Amino acid sequence: MPSNTSVRLARRPTGVPVHDDFSLVVDDAEAPGPGQVLVRVDLISLDPAMRGWLDDRPSYLPPIALGEVVRAAGVGEVIASQHPRYPEGSVVTGTFGVQEYAVAEGASLTRVNPTLGTPSMYLGVLGLTGLTAYFGLFTHGRPRAGDTVVVSGAAGAVGSVAGQLAAISGCRVVGVAGGPDKCAYLTDALGFDAAVDYKAARLRSALRETCPDGIDVYFDNVGGAVLDAALANLAMNARIVISGAISQYNADAATPGPSNYMALLVRRASMTGFLVFDHAAEYRVARNRLAGWVATGQVVAPETIVPGQVADFHEVLLRLFRGDNLGKLILDIST
Amino acid sequence: MPSNTSVRLARRPTGVPVHDDFSLVVDDAEAPGPGQVLVRVDLISLDPAMRGWLDDRPSYLPPIALGEVVRAAGVGEVIASQHPRYPEGSVVTGTFGVQEYAVAEGASLTRVNPTLGTPSMYLGVLGLTGLTAYFGLFTHGRPRAGDTVVVSGAAGAVGSVAGQLAAISGCRVVGVAGGPDKCAYLTDALGFDAAVDYKAARLRSALRETCPDGIDVYFDNVGGAVLDAALANLAMNARIVISGAISQYNADAATPGPSNYMALLVRRASMTGFLVFDHAAEYRVARNRLAGWVATGQVVAPETIVPGQVADFHEVLLRLFRGDNLGKLILDIST
Repeated sequence: MPSNTSVRLARRPTGVPVHDDFSLVVDDAEAPGPGQVLVRVDLISLDPAMRGWLDDRPSYLPPIALGEVVRAAGVGEVIASQHPRYPEGSVVTGTFGVQEYAVAEGASLTRVNPTLGTPSMYLGVLGLTGLTAYFGLFTHGRPRAGDTVVVSGAAGAVGSVAGQLAAISGCRVVGVAGGPDKCAYLTDALGFDAAVDYKAARLRSALRETCPDGIDVYFDNVGGAVLDAALANLAMNARIVISGAISQYNADAATPGPSNYMALLVRRASMTGFLVFDHAAEYRVARNRLAGWVATGQVVAPETIVPGQVADFHEVLLRLFRGDNLGKLILDIST
Repeated sequence: MPSNTSVRLARRPTGVPVHDDFSLVVDDAEAPGPGQVLVRVDLISLDPAMRGWLDDRPSYLPPIALGEVVRAAGVGEVIASQHPRYPEGSVVTGTFGVQEYAVAEGASLTRVNPTLGTPSMYLGVLGLTGLTAYFGLFTHGRPRAGDTVVVSGAAGAVGSVAGQLAAISGCRVVGVAGGPDKCAYLTDALGFDAAVDYKAARLRSALRETCPDGIDVYFDNVGGAVLDAALANLAMNARIVISGAISQYNADAATPGPSNYMALLVRRASMTGFLVFDHAAEYRVARNRLAGWVATGQVVAPETIVPGQVADFHEVLLRLFRGDNLGKLILDIST
C-alpha cells in the first residue's frame, strides 16, 4: 500500500482556522474491503461549509472528530478495487477527505463521465456546488421569467452558477460580490445584468437602485449585512433561499440575525433553508441539464485551481474566507 | 349630527406610546355621503399591529398621519344610512377608528350575524384576529395530525385561537406565554398539551424538554428571544409562520434578528410571513368554520372587555404591551 499523507483536525478552530488547528499525518493507505475501492486523490474541493464541520455542534452532518481526516469532496482514480462497477482506472468523485489516498464505499461514488465534463467540473458546476445552485434556485427560489433575482457571493462557486441559471430562466439577475474586479467579471463574463460591490456600496440603497421593483428571489450564500439589505428590498411574495452564510462561519460569538426579518410579513415573503443532499434522487437529471448548458456556453463555470500538496490545505482554505477565489476553489495534488 | 369625540395621533411615539402621543378632539360627526353610513361605535378593538401604524414607516398599510384618528377595528350600529344593504339599526363591523361615531363606506362593512356570534366575537375569534390564526395556521403552517405545534403569545387573541385550531388538527400543542396564570389557563381552559412560561424558563431548554421530537410548526406572535429559541428546536421540514412580533414593536432601535436563522438550512425549514388581508376571498368560509367550532366548544375565545370611553384608549392599549390581557382586548364604549 502506498504511503498516505492526510490532513487531520488537531483542535477546534476559534474564528478563522489557523495553521495549528490541523496536523499532517503520514501512514500507509489501507486496503479496500469488500465493496470498497482505494482511490488516489487528484483534486480536493474547498467549500465554505467545511468551516461548520470543524465545530463541535450538531448540524446536518456530524462534526469532524479530533484526529479525523478533514472531510472534503474530491476526484481521483481507482487504483485498487473490490467493487465490480469501479475497476482500477475508473475516475470517480466522492467524499475522500483531505488526503492523498482514500478508501471509499463503491456505492457512495459517482463516475466522472468525460462526455459531460472535466474532472474538476465534477467538483464544481457538475458537483455539489452546481447542484446546490440548481436545486436552491429552481426548487426553492421558483423563479419566473421577468423576476428580479439577487445572488450574494455571486462570484463564488455556487453563486456564479445560480445567477446564470436565473438568467436562463428569463430573470433579471443582480450579483453581490466583493470588489470591482469580481463585479466586472459578473457582468462581463457571466452575463449578470448588474452587480453590487458590497465592499464599496451602501448596500441597502444600492440594492434599491439596482432593483427598483424589489427583489423577487434572493439566493443567499453570505448572510449578515447583505441578507439584511435584501430583506429591506423585497418585492411582494418574495422567496429567500438560504444556501449558506459564509460571512458568519468564522464568527467567534453568536452573530446577530437578520434584524429586518419582519419584512417577511410586510411583503408576504418566505425564507427557506435547504440542503442539496435531499435532492439526490434528482442529481442525474440536474447534472445532465447543467452539462448541457455548459456545452452551449449558457453557463460559464469559473474555477480557481491551485496546484499543490495536501499540506497546502490550510493556506488554500483561507482564500475562501478572504474571498480571493473566483468560482470553484480546488486544490490539485495530482502533480 | 351628534358630537363625536375621537383619539388622534398627536406625535409619533418613541418606544412605548405615552399619553401625550395622542390628543382628544371633539367635533360634530359628519353626515354619510352616497354609499356611506354613519356608525355609532360600541366596541373598539385593540391590536398589537396598531403600534406599527403609529410609526412613519412604509408597511402593509400607510402610517397614520399626524392629526388623523387612530386606526382601529370596531363594531357599532348604523344610525344614518345611504347604503341600501345597511339600513339604520344594522350592527356592523369595520375599521371605524378610535372615536364615537364613524362614517364608513358601506362596501367596507361586514354585518354582525347574531346566529354566528356576539358583536365582540366579530373583533376576536370571528374577526381579523381569529382569521389571522386560521389562515396563518392552516394555509401557512400546514399542520398535519401528530405534528408538534408551538404558539407564542399563546394567551393572546391570535395565539389562543391558533393553538386550539392546531389541537383540532390533531397536533400536540405547546403554548408560550408570560406567567404561571396564563400558562395554567392554556392547559386547563384551552386544552393546550403543555405551556412554557417565557418569564421563568430557560426558553431553549424548556422547548427542548416540551418538544423532544422538535417543533414542526412554530406560530410566532412575539419575535425576539422566543423566536430564536424555537429556531434552535426545529424538527426537519419545520414551518415557521410569522404572524407578529409584539416583543419588538416598542423597540427604540433596530432589534437584533433571530441569530439562529441558519437552523432553517440545517432543518430544511421555512419561515413565512403573511397578512390576513390577502385571504379576504376566504373570510366567509373561515368565519363559518370558526363559529362552528365555538358553538361546539372546540374553540374557546377568551376576551378582555374593558368598559370605558375613547379617552381611555391609551391606558387600555398599554395592557397589550404589558401582557395584562387574556385573549382579545376590547374597549367597550357603549355605556
